[in-house]
Amino acid sequence: MIGAQALLRTLLGSGVDTCFTNPGTSEMHFVAALDDVPGMRAVLTLFEGVATGAADGYGRMAGRPAATLLHLGPGLGNGLANLHNARRARTPIVNIVGDHAVGHRVHDAPLHSDIETVARNVSQWVRTSGSPAEVGPDATEAIVAALGGSVATLVLPADVSWDEGAAPGPVAATIPRLEIATDVIDTVVAAHRRGEPVGLLLGGLALGDDGLAAAARIEAAGVRVLVETFPARMMRGAGRPAFERVNYFGEVAVPQLAGLAHLVCCDAPAPVAFFAYPGRPGTHVAEDCAVHHLVPDGPSAVAALERLADALGAPATAPAPTGARPERPSGALTVESLARAVAAVLPEGAIVSEEALTGAVSAEAATRAAAPHDWLTLTGGAIGQGLPVATGAAVACPDRPVLSLQADGSAMYTIQSLWTQAREGLDVTTVILNNRAYAILALELGRVGARTDGSAADLFDLSRPPLDFAALARGMGVPARTATTADELVAALDEAFTEPGPHLVDAVLA
Amino acid sequence: MIGAQALLRTLLGSGVDTCFTNPGTSEMHFVAALDDVPGMRAVLTLFEGVATGAADGYGRMAGRPAATLLHLGPGLGNGLANLHNARRARTPIVNIVGDHAVGHRVHDAPLHSDIETVARNVSQWVRTSGSPAEVGPDATEAIVAALGGSVATLVLPADVSWDEGAAPGPVAATIPRLEIATDVIDTVVAAHRRGEPVGLLLGGLALGDDGLAAAARIEAAGVRVLVETFPARMMRGAGRPAFERVNYFGEVAVPQLAGLAHLVCCDAPAPVAFFAYPGRPGTHVAEDCAVHHLVPDGPSAVAALERLADALGAPATAPAPTGARPERPSGALTVESLARAVAAVLPEGAIVSEEALTGAVSAEAATRAAAPHDWLTLTGGAIGQGLPVATGAAVACPDRPVLSLQADGSAMYTIQSLWTQAREGLDVTTVILNNRAYAILALELGRVGARTDGSAADLFDLSRPPLDFAALARGMGVPARTATTADELVAALDEAFTEPGPHLVDAVLA
Repeated sequence: MIGAQALLRTLLGSGVDTCFTNPGTSEMHFVAALDDVPGMRAVLTLFEGVATGAADGYGRMAGRPAATLLHLGPGLGNGLANLHNARRARTPIVNIVGDHAVGHRVHDAPLHSDIETVARNVSQWVRTSGSPAEVGPDATEAIVAALGGSVATLVLPADVSWDEGAAPGPVAATIPRLEIATDVIDTVVAAHRRGEPVGLLLGGLALGDDGLAAAARIEAAGVRVLVETFPARMMRGAGRPAFERVNYFGEVAVPQLAGLAHLVCCDAPAPVAFFAYPGRPGTHVAEDCAVHHLVPDGPSAVAALERLADALGAPATAPAPTGARPERPSGALTVESLARAVAAVLPEGAIVSEEALTGAVSAEAATRAAAPHDWLTLTGGAIGQGLPVATGAAVACPDRPVLSLQADGSAMYTIQSLWTQAREGLDVTTVILNNRAYAILALELGRVGARTDGSAADLFDLSRPPLDFAALARGMGVPARTATTADELVAALDEAFTEPGPHLVDAVLA
Repeated sequence: MIGAQALLRTLLGSGVDTCFTNPGTSEMHFVAALDDVPGMRAVLTLFEGVATGAADGYGRMAGRPAATLLHLGPGLGNGLANLHNARRARTPIVNIVGDHAVGHRVHDAPLHSDIETVARNVSQWVRTSGSPAEVGPDATEAIVAALGGSVATLVLPADVSWDEGAAPGPVAATIPRLEIATDVIDTVVAAHRRGEPVGLLLGGLALGDDGLAAAARIEAAGVRVLVETFPARMMRGAGRPAFERVNYFGEVAVPQLAGLAHLVCCDAPAPVAFFAYPGRPGTHVAEDCAVHHLVPDGPSAVAALERLADALGAPATAPAPTGARPERPSGALTVESLARAVAAVLPEGAIVSEEALTGAVSAEAATRAAAPHDWLTLTGGAIGQGLPVATGAAVACPDRPVLSLQADGSAMYTIQSLWTQAREGLDVTTVILNNRAYAILALELGRVGARTDGSAADLFDLSRPPLDFAALARGMGVPARTATTADELVAALDEAFTEPGPHLVDAVLA
């Protein structure tokens, strides 16, 4: 058996049956092996940033890793930004990077570069398989590492892929852990009984239905519950417990967290400033607030929350929140009416990939009582993640509609995603929040204390020429409409959610 | 003076007056400083891969560096593939990467990553400025390093950019070197006199008019002259000496170089196989052929060639080659008729950015007697370089028409280039060689010895759905036409070369 076949068998043996790829010459034996070893769905992308972002979206929704297949160092480079986001999301991914044959490296051929070093920046596990015999066991290790909530990068030299002498690795066995910081529970319960203000910060795997239910009990016991600023996946909508998210802006986030004597983080890092600003604090947590971590990582999050709720003497269940979904809006198309339109028409069970940037706060607020849905955000700040994540989520969940809420500037980073959505017939509706600007930067210019009376805004201007996203979508085979009023947007969304396959609506904001 | 202002003054003081950028929050003080320190042309791109590729095209044509301005590690990642190509082209670039404020790094904010490590993969010089006082001198060093023919990466923390206490660095002084391996000249001349077959391989800075003239003299003295496979910039066309390029395919390249006892490389590495193939040699040079290097790098290339020509007793001038430019083709649109159309209508002084892949050989052959032009190729094998290089070349040479000969699959990597061409009104004509496939991979599948009877070709298929490049171009404000016959292509090219500003022709090949 050649290395490529053993690799495929190892992946499939552990349930890794989807691969997002843009292969090149060094990956040809892997591609050919797809016929020898059936069962792997290979999803072609036009750019590696789409492949890695789609693997992120897939992993967030499936709860198990997809594989990628990338072409040497430059292919990894193209995928790096979305692997960075996946690392921050703690998404399981088995990232496979083809390399030159081992003996070819001495020639410093044009595509040669130091793949491992670049991969370490985004991967908690990196290895180069040195021989066909190593591929199977290495792949198993990569899957185990990925299942722990990380990007695992396996570098596959071309000759290791094509040479005989390989065998599949064992099934990736992971032992379910239950690691709860019981001392934290004791400390926090005691503090709560003493009347000290306690806050609970939910992130990561705490944001599913079970975690939210436990958190609602904890809230009923008198603890303030907050959600991390950029969650990888959060269940929300009508009937589900809803908690305030820590704001991106320090001016808002610091007051949000002020007055807490204890902040208990559950699968979330303590909130820090996204960027540094002259004279402003680097962390959002007050100096005299003690920060505790309830679990070391995600798998124990729900059990830990239930344990904490019990220790606090919380009621067995908390009442479900009520709220009505907004009416369909009419009139001018603004960030606010767009948000209400989305909330009004969002189908039950939808997956929302949100990279709306300056439109995010309105969208989140309006959809609090929308039909139940999952909400995926930009976890690492590297824009260009939304369209690929929507793509991968749709591959993982073919029976659920996907809505991609996407700012215009960042949409252009990985606009090639639309073609893969068309090729695969994915049920993704993309709404471009088209304000013809990098609007976030106009805000940030003043926040960092730079002069705002100059011509800098010219570098944030996307109106010269305006981007016609409907034309771009049609150019990649995705049916598209332009909406300039709330009524047009509602009609376009209705159509998009009714017809199968991908659609795009270019929502040109007033 | 704040760090950002000192940096701008240092760049401008050494003639670095163009910056390709997609900035973010950590770069806002640099952006604002553009008003305080006039003279820098900031060219906005929609994706960092466009910025770095444009800096490559600019540097190849201007012979001096452009700056980039990138947003932290993910911005660098997005620009990495084209910096890889620039490194292989030995293009001078001052690559500026914004980072978090120095004191903010401990917080591991979402966008934090190890920028220097990734930068080292593509940069011969890397430094992080630790204080405002260091920025000026560091920038001077970066420019000096870039002028030596390399990518120099300066990491600029946000507080170093915004804090006072900086001063401009000195003007970047470079001492012209003349480093010629005279022992190589002696050895080669002696071998040539003994009747041993000698070959000369031209690359890099040997491919300008003076170098070509000297090489023509050497050829007239009985030495075989060849050109490296993927030159950064080659002057060619009617009346200019033309030499055979070493072929990409080893099956062709090995016979090309067979029989030589000596290969003298002038600013070019010895030819190696682009990829490894089972059972095939890794280098294209025969084992019994001695490889010599005439110069350590580019600046001495022309003088070295002239010295070699003199030592060989070559004639003072070689006759200029003759040849007629092809007639305008008619009929079916094929790779061959497309090449003839280009050769027939190419304006004098044009710059051709060629990333035509399977269409490259025909295009090069047909344009040998076209109007004099410069020819820029994909130097590092990382596809998605052609459109950005065309963009940067047009910024560097506003009075010269630019033709971008671009394969369809690789066009999609950095298709965002078209918007910058429209925004800047650049005179770039893009011709998409649209064969609706990654055709090169269909070739490579068999060459690497993988099975070709399976479904692998499905992963090379770009016809499902077909890409409509005219729609994509219009979506970014670039006038576009689709051509399906040679006649339509000729008419579209005539129009594009007559009207100012960017145009695109989607040449759908039969």
